[in-house]
Amino acid sequence: MPRVVVDVVLKPEISDPQGQAVLGALGRLGHAGVTGVRQGKHFVLDVEGTPDEAELREIAETLLANPVIEDVELHLSGS
Amino acid sequence: MPRVVVDVVLKPEISDPQGQAVLGALGRLGHAGVTGVRQGKHFVLDVEGTPDEAELREIAETLLANPVIEDVELHLSGS
Repeated sequence: MPRVVVDVVLKPEISDPQGQAVLGALGRLGHAGVTGVRQGKHFVLDVEGTPDEAELREIAETLLANPVIEDVELHLSGS
Repeated sequence: MPRVVVDVVLKPEISDPQGQAVLGALGRLGHAGVTGVRQGKHFVLDVEGTPDEAELREIAETLLANPVIEDVELHLSGS
């Protein structure tokens, strides 16, 4: 069954307290090589038949993400 | 700067109420072609210098995910 991955990330200009908290924890635990962390959402959709990219993009941009503050990356990874 | 993506997904046998809620909403909104949804977390890490894959895997598996219920996918996507 075709599988579609949608990654939802905060726009670069939006502050990300969750990512900041992870970054702070990594620093305290000695992982100083990591200099930035952004946290987003990762959706895996099972799609019946041939994925309709336009419909999936609409789903991703309007239902899975808040387009005011979030960007969307769509990956049609095949079956 | 090298950028590393970590996707954290619930193990297949763990129930996913968030994904189920999204799936139900998509069905009610007429997107019947989507037959399954799983929701996870998506982290983007900025790494200074050459990424140390072993260290990043340890970070991902022990700090970003709960290995009891979650699986991790690590993508070293380069600079």
